[in-house]
Amino acid sequence: MEEQDSADPYVPYDGGGDAIPLQELSGRGSNYAMSNGGGGAGASSSTHLLDLLEEPIPGVGTYDDFHTIDWVREKCKDRERHRKINSKKKESAWEFTKSLYDAWSGWLVVTLTGLASGALAGVIDIAADWLNDLKEGVCLSAMWFNHEQCCWDSNETTFAERDKCPQWKTWAELILGQAEGPGSYIMNYFMFTFWALSFAFLAVSLVKVFAPYACGSGIPEIKTILSGFIIRGYLGKWTLMIKTITLVLAVASGLSLGKEGPLVHVACCCGNIFSYLFPKYSKNEAKKREVLSAASAAGVSVAFGAPIGGVLFSLEEVSYYFPLKTLWRSFFAALVAAFVLRSINPFGNSRLVLFYVEYHTPWYLFELFPFILLGVFGGLWGAFFIRANIAWCRRRKSTRFGKYPVLEVITVAAITAIVAFPNPYTRQNTSELIKELFTDCGPLESSQLCQYRSQMNGSQAYPAGSDAAAAPGVYSAMWQLSLALVFKIIMTIFTFGLKVPSGLFIPSMAIGAIAGRIVGIAVEQLAYYHHDWFLFREWCEVGADCITPGLYAMVGAAACLGGVTRMTVSLVVIVFELTGGLEYIVPLMAAVMTSKWVGDAFGREGIYEAHIRLNGYPFLDAKEEFTHTTLARDVMRPRRNDTPLAVLTQDDMTLAELQNIISETSYNGFPVIVSKESQRLVGFALRRDITIAIENARRKQEGIMLNSRVYFTQHAPTLPADSPRPLKLRSILDMSPFTVTDHTPMEIVVDIFRKLGLRQCLVTHNGILLGIITKKNILEHLEELKQHVEPLIDDI
Amino acid sequence: MEEQDSADPYVPYDGGGDAIPLQELSGRGSNYAMSNGGGGAGASSSTHLLDLLEEPIPGVGTYDDFHTIDWVREKCKDRERHRKINSKKKESAWEFTKSLYDAWSGWLVVTLTGLASGALAGVIDIAADWLNDLKEGVCLSAMWFNHEQCCWDSNETTFAERDKCPQWKTWAELILGQAEGPGSYIMNYFMFTFWALSFAFLAVSLVKVFAPYACGSGIPEIKTILSGFIIRGYLGKWTLMIKTITLVLAVASGLSLGKEGPLVHVACCCGNIFSYLFPKYSKNEAKKREVLSAASAAGVSVAFGAPIGGVLFSLEEVSYYFPLKTLWRSFFAALVAAFVLRSINPFGNSRLVLFYVEYHTPWYLFELFPFILLGVFGGLWGAFFIRANIAWCRRRKSTRFGKYPVLEVITVAAITAIVAFPNPYTRQNTSELIKELFTDCGPLESSQLCQYRSQMNGSQAYPAGSDAAAAPGVYSAMWQLSLALVFKIIMTIFTFGLKVPSGLFIPSMAIGAIAGRIVGIAVEQLAYYHHDWFLFREWCEVGADCITPGLYAMVGAAACLGGVTRMTVSLVVIVFELTGGLEYIVPLMAAVMTSKWVGDAFGREGIYEAHIRLNGYPFLDAKEEFTHTTLARDVMRPRRNDTPLAVLTQDDMTLAELQNIISETSYNGFPVIVSKESQRLVGFALRRDITIAIENARRKQEGIMLNSRVYFTQHAPTLPADSPRPLKLRSILDMSPFTVTDHTPMEIVVDIFRKLGLRQCLVTHNGILLGIITKKNILEHLEELKQHVEPLIDDI
Repeated sequence: MEEQDSADPYVPYDGGGDAIPLQELSGRGSNYAMSNGGGGAGASSSTHLLDLLEEPIPGVGTYDDFHTIDWVREKCKDRERHRKINSKKKESAWEFTKSLYDAWSGWLVVTLTGLASGALAGVIDIAADWLNDLKEGVCLSAMWFNHEQCCWDSNETTFAERDKCPQWKTWAELILGQAEGPGSYIMNYFMFTFWALSFAFLAVSLVKVFAPYACGSGIPEIKTILSGFIIRGYLGKWTLMIKTITLVLAVASGLSLGKEGPLVHVACCCGNIFSYLFPKYSKNEAKKREVLSAASAAGVSVAFGAPIGGVLFSLEEVSYYFPLKTLWRSFFAALVAAFVLRSINPFGNSRLVLFYVEYHTPWYLFELFPFILLGVFGGLWGAFFIRANIAWCRRRKSTRFGKYPVLEVITVAAITAIVAFPNPYTRQNTSELIKELFTDCGPLESSQLCQYRSQMNGSQAYPAGSDAAAAPGVYSAMWQLSLALVFKIIMTIFTFGLKVPSGLFIPSMAIGAIAGRIVGIAVEQLAYYHHDWFLFREWCEVGADCITPGLYAMVGAAACLGGVTRMTVSLVVIVFELTGGLEYIVPLMAAVMTSKWVGDAFGREGIYEAHIRLNGYPFLDAKEEFTHTTLARDVMRPRRNDTPLAVLTQDDMTLAELQNIISETSYNGFPVIVSKESQRLVGFALRRDITIAIENARRKQEGIMLNSRVYFTQHAPTLPADSPRPLKLRSILDMSPFTVTDHTPMEIVVDIFRKLGLRQCLVTHNGILLGIITKKNILEHLEELKQHVEPLIDDI
Repeated sequence: MEEQDSADPYVPYDGGGDAIPLQELSGRGSNYAMSNGGGGAGASSSTHLLDLLEEPIPGVGTYDDFHTIDWVREKCKDRERHRKINSKKKESAWEFTKSLYDAWSGWLVVTLTGLASGALAGVIDIAADWLNDLKEGVCLSAMWFNHEQCCWDSNETTFAERDKCPQWKTWAELILGQAEGPGSYIMNYFMFTFWALSFAFLAVSLVKVFAPYACGSGIPEIKTILSGFIIRGYLGKWTLMIKTITLVLAVASGLSLGKEGPLVHVACCCGNIFSYLFPKYSKNEAKKREVLSAASAAGVSVAFGAPIGGVLFSLEEVSYYFPLKTLWRSFFAALVAAFVLRSINPFGNSRLVLFYVEYHTPWYLFELFPFILLGVFGGLWGAFFIRANIAWCRRRKSTRFGKYPVLEVITVAAITAIVAFPNPYTRQNTSELIKELFTDCGPLESSQLCQYRSQMNGSQAYPAGSDAAAAPGVYSAMWQLSLALVFKIIMTIFTFGLKVPSGLFIPSMAIGAIAGRIVGIAVEQLAYYHHDWFLFREWCEVGADCITPGLYAMVGAAACLGGVTRMTVSLVVIVFELTGGLEYIVPLMAAVMTSKWVGDAFGREGIYEAHIRLNGYPFLDAKEEFTHTTLARDVMRPRRNDTPLAVLTQDDMTLAELQNIISETSYNGFPVIVSKESQRLVGFALRRDITIAIENARRKQEGIMLNSRVYFTQHAPTLPADSPRPLKLRSILDMSPFTVTDHTPMEIVVDIFRKLGLRQCLVTHNGILLGIITKKNILEHLEELKQHVEPLIDDI
């Protein structure tokens, strides 16, 4: 093989012209260069060899569970598929139809995903609502009506008492026959707790028995999967089914959790399942992730009724590889999902979410101060929550305690139900609570929060849009809200991470909304009683409506959500889509920005990154930046005192030596070099591929023995006459491994890993192989840095 | 230098421990590895050398005009700067303040950019409006009022005749003293043309004399600059000043152009100018481009009153390197700009744009058919426009014709003015035309387009929101609109590319809006006269308002804009922000999608990419995908019969040989190899850096002669005793050049170039240097492919 090692670089190969036959290029990592057969090993065996190699070895190019995909290889595979389809499509009408089907399958799969996500979100909304009301009572006229629907048909109730109607019976009324009194209160209390426990028990049991992956919010895992990790079954049909059912149960059980995160998981399951209908997506892990990105946009779209926010969420928070084509399709999926949900109309208000609001009063500059204060609160809460929750989850993982998930869920559910019932703000559905807190007081508002003294006669009244003195109702509401705040804070820490589907958005927003409403009412009363302060003088005359406590609740909700997740743009856009006014973006931005900065001061990870790290997933965050002072040679393996790197030589190893190296090491792949003497890098071979190829050769090729020579070159090496038949492994050799020099700064290496989605990279010095850097090495290196090096202050 | 070439890779360097001193890493390409001095060349000269090297050679690391930046180097430079600031900031309060200033400068610069862009947009709007009305007449009571403002104060006019008031005098009234009659018509006609010509002449003269870069829309150049190209002065203060002034003049001259594209240029100038206040941005080309991305978002934000659309435009259309941090800052800049513009309130409607609309009627499913038809029209128009405009521009570039830009502008302006005046739809400002076409007919609408027959008595009346038979006014309006359509189509082709600031958004939207309105009225009349057709039966009873012609105008505008620019998500979001209703996104998406597909069928480039190609800018589009069947070795230089690659050897060249190579070739850089015999790659040195370093050495170092040995290694080679002093150039050697193997498929190479922003990449085979691939080679290769290979059908 002199020619391969030729020192003259300007007269290279025999076969390397300008046009390379199509079949030569069937995917990186599989047989690139198997043209012009014939060589040292005799013509007959060579044709046999060629036959064998032309059919791709089954299994080569697939991945094991819990392994990282090779983005580059997947993208090449996809383009190869395209080439095949393009070259075939002129052959027949059938092939042309197939090529059209292939071209449109991207749109089909996102449409189907959008439709399914929207429909499932509608079903979940309706079912959760019904089950939630079941804790309080039943509708006698029609069992399947929830409280609100039950009383719609009733003509006997007035608008103010629209919650009460004879058809709707509380459990006390039904069982004891009486609606008032301590006995019925206890009965209702008992039934409330009973149902909550039943739902929680059912949920955790279903998850445990049928689909362990259905628990949690799913977003950390989806982020990891989108970054190129394989977790088989995480997005499968069982997970989808069980997650949908148990999500309804978990929400209805009254636990401090929301359905927004799990809805993203549900949408991604839909995307994954539908992608199996289209070979373009089912057979390519990189393409499949495009569908999943679109699906996560659809998930957020239905969770918050915010299609644009959903797309930005997908872009900012979960996606890794996001070509512009995906942006457009994600947008489409998000819209389709939103329209399906709107036509299902689960809340009866032709809106996608319960807590859509419209404000009519502007905000004033001095209000930025309380808004920023809410931002600080949000950041503190976020930092505190992340630390406390991670500490608790770590304890659960490491101690015996984690072995009884059912018991844990039931305990938490029981405590939640028992503590929640007496306080009206914790008893009700969290979404409804948020809606109530967001809504501005108006003449039609019957809430306790809107009990202000009328200016005319000093008695209690519901003012129509002007600041007024608070009546005792507001004060008692403030007390109850404060208790609810403490309750929610504590329970959320223990709830997120339970073995039931549990989202974090709604509890976080609820906490922020409570805090915000409290601050809002405080500012409002301050402005009312001190309207001659220089701050208020300009805007808050007596009788004017200058403070909107509902807006404070919304700003607080955004701040708390921002503190926990560290989302920025997408969060602001989501909340903007909830309010529908550009007007309020500035307060939102101020609060979200403050919250992020305050949160980042205590630790730069959001809750999802923290959970990814807790679970040890190999996720290379695209957002973190560090100032490395290291070079590639400091991070590469082997380190100074390690055993030398396990390498293969291109043409002088026997099968026995090869198998020996494979069995003695556990590396996922091996560099191939010219020879032990020259150490120049030829390529890279994956362990899995080598094993498969050897087995395949053993099955199909005769004469392969332990002392067979293994070669990765184009032509077989010249061998003694009596030597057994050699084994050609060139087809599994990746002849274009990524390399960096040993002097490359690590920041560049990390950048390359992130942007190209590498699994490993070889380190050379003047063309000679020195070592290898894997994604795992990079993660370890970043982990080390995190402990020693300050992050970039620039990242504000 | 045995150690450098050591074949044993596992025991490498003396100095290479885990921690590398800070100063060793001052930027890629400059002195990485100049630790532990002392070597073959004697201690005294070595310390001298070290002193020399520690101060960076001035000029190394900067760029020439019309060259491409090295993203990787810039990013490393920035991190190095951070390290310095971070390490210093604990030294003193002053350093700490400086570090805070540095950390906040990102926010400061985008805030300033947003403020300036908003203010300039407001000024441009107001001035253009005033100048435009000057073509018709003057306000006697106050010269500086435009027509509308002039008549605001007038109490004598009724609402229906709000355009007429005694204070406002047309030129005929002023000069001839009469308002009616053929004489005054001719006078007005003459003055209209006179002013139009004056404005156009002034605009083109100013551009020609003061700032040639101020012409055109600027978006192709900004895209190129953002992708890493240097065009000095393109974003400078002269360009800003002249562009602002001439934009006003050009818009007022009535040419078929808009201010939206140039506003993006103006905003980018602001961003560039403000970035000079902050060393973090002024001294780093990569960081500066972050500011420019944010600025372009601000530009679109004020152009269309669409902050979110602006961010997505920046992301989808112009930006190249867009980290998430930039997304957040772009959003902020866009918001600030929008709020400044809103407080300036140039249109007196507290909206950011003239043509903000709100529709109140839904659309029906059968309307998708005309919407898709409009999409087809938009796509056809886009494809036709791009071809025709590029052909015309090419003709202008290649023939003598392009030598008389002033004459050309005046000719086009004269034709435009003369043809435009008689037709009311072309005489008026294009933005106003779009507003009129978008607006739905209501009881207050006095437009000719709203002259319907009343259902009661058959006479002309303005119906309040229900379909009706068109009156003659509508028919004559349809005729005039058709003529206006033809006129706009022709004039826009000849206008875009003139040497005045000229945007394309408004003319494109106007064409689409005219076509859309015509289709809308046609469908409306069809529905009115055939309301028993099965299509209309369900929705269009007599008296119901089922068709909104204004919506058709908007859909048409989006389709035409989409056809010309091939924008997708950002376009839909921009138009969504104009209407403020999620409801109409589906028609918009359908039309924009159709328009893109139809346009792509005729050629996949948008107008901006086409102009980039026309001007030969080195822009590597991130969106195009091809199925290459080539490998790196097919694209690399030298080709088979070329002269061998010009390489430097690491330690056996003399200064004369080096200078010889530099003077004989024109390459921007040279690979450095171990020796002519071994050909193994060591690094890469830039031509500019070598020249600067040699000059610097000549000036500062004694004893450098033509036969001095030049070396790139750590230690000087052992030389004969009488040889002159050697020159060490290691500090300018990039020791981590990007390499790929010759077998790497070109699609991967292109991907690497795009994602990492490379300028060149070396090609190796088994560690031996074979050739080089530059960005130019890649662009040529893609150009070739474009002619031979079908693009990916998948890209639908």
